[in-house]
Amino acid sequence: MTKFDEATQAIRVDETTYDVCLDPGYSIGGPLNGGYLMAAILRAVVDASPYVHPVSTAAQFLRAPRPGPARVRLEPLKTGRTATMTRATLVQDDAAYIEALVTTATLGGAASEWAGAPAVAMPPVEECVALPDPKPMSNMTLNAQMRLLFDPPTIGWLTGEPSGRPESRAYFRMAEPQDPDPFVLALAVDALPPVVFSAGRRGWAPTVELTWHLRALPAPGWLILAGQGRLIRDGWFDEDVEVWDSEGNLVAQSRQLARLGRS
Amino acid sequence: MTKFDEATQAIRVDETTYDVCLDPGYSIGGPLNGGYLMAAILRAVVDASPYVHPVSTAAQFLRAPRPGPARVRLEPLKTGRTATMTRATLVQDDAAYIEALVTTATLGGAASEWAGAPAVAMPPVEECVALPDPKPMSNMTLNAQMRLLFDPPTIGWLTGEPSGRPESRAYFRMAEPQDPDPFVLALAVDALPPVVFSAGRRGWAPTVELTWHLRALPAPGWLILAGQGRLIRDGWFDEDVEVWDSEGNLVAQSRQLARLGRS
Repeated sequence: MTKFDEATQAIRVDETTYDVCLDPGYSIGGPLNGGYLMAAILRAVVDASPYVHPVSTAAQFLRAPRPGPARVRLEPLKTGRTATMTRATLVQDDAAYIEALVTTATLGGAASEWAGAPAVAMPPVEECVALPDPKPMSNMTLNAQMRLLFDPPTIGWLTGEPSGRPESRAYFRMAEPQDPDPFVLALAVDALPPVVFSAGRRGWAPTVELTWHLRALPAPGWLILAGQGRLIRDGWFDEDVEVWDSEGNLVAQSRQLARLGRS
Repeated sequence: MTKFDEATQAIRVDETTYDVCLDPGYSIGGPLNGGYLMAAILRAVVDASPYVHPVSTAAQFLRAPRPGPARVRLEPLKTGRTATMTRATLVQDDAAYIEALVTTATLGGAASEWAGAPAVAMPPVEECVALPDPKPMSNMTLNAQMRLLFDPPTIGWLTGEPSGRPESRAYFRMAEPQDPDPFVLALAVDALPPVVFSAGRRGWAPTVELTWHLRALPAPGWLILAGQGRLIRDGWFDEDVEVWDSEGNLVAQSRQLARLGRS
């Protein structure tokens, strides 16, 4: 079991209740990363489902939970011949922190019937660059869990040269060797710095809603995360992330709606 | 009050219960249109919220409700300084048909800080074409409620010439004169024929999950609906719809995950 598997482990209490222990190692400067929290929720949902893959997850982020014990409460909504639908709530001290609607199904190995091309071409991994290590007191512990190698123009904001467009693109893998799986993908879709940094914005950008779909099981190796926004308006922005695997398959699609940080 | 306003009316029973009457005029050959059902749910959510705009809606489609009386049950999840989060369930005969997680807020009139260009250019409205009237016994009553004028290549499938790509683009307005508002947008994001028709597929393509975000209040006039898919695989496809208003603003973004019809 990898550290990530352990940090997202959900232990069955009864049919609709799972215990999780939220790991301080997935902090993004205080709050825990939303993708990490989704992964923990999905462990419980998948364990309780007759189907093994979380094909669709819509999560609403109500509050930021603290590291430590928490529960996932499940409400089965429907089980059909191809899919199960479940409501899942992440609860801490009897309050709801994340609400999610999840559809599980079992993906087969069928090849794509039709696939669009990647929206952007990535430079080779050797030409991509890591973020500098976070400041020791910043509590950005998430960075140590994963390797992100960025398409250089999309982190120009680090040196005062934002590209002017909401975008972020990187190669991604876990720091501890682990083949990507659907739970790693839940982390991956929320692993990039907010795309608005590249449009000249800074500051904490809380996710309000994030929906992602698992489209295929990822092949081993690096993933490519391609993030972009369509609109920054009225204090809100969207962030679309496509995840491609090492064999060139689109394996996940996500979109989040988030608030602009006060910068 | 327009016919659409009436058909989506939600009458308050108590703080968390609203009565709706599902109108047979929004049928797509039997089942009712998912966008219409979302509009009815959102009437209840917005009425009960201190904020007036449904900025984010994630809906999971469990079962297809019948025309006639139904209820919307609300569960308030959180009210903050900028937004309220609510769970809403469409109920008929004590069973849940649609589960939704909705965030309401109040959009100001702020201009875009950054906006991407439309993904595709539409031909002028005069060069676009309507679908033929549905067969009298087909129960496609939805078509009479709205005007859709299609970019011709994207309905080539009608005459045996699908474009080969999952896509659908059209001008949209209500048949009865009505300025677009957020409830009309809820209908609009699910108003196009499935994008997979254009990739050579046919048949009933049930939506499993649809998330849409209201990004700005639409100006009066025609809307443009630009729909496309990224991947058809393993019995599933995605449909992304952007809605642009007559002043060239992106006003809504949606993505649905749906099952391929058996064709």
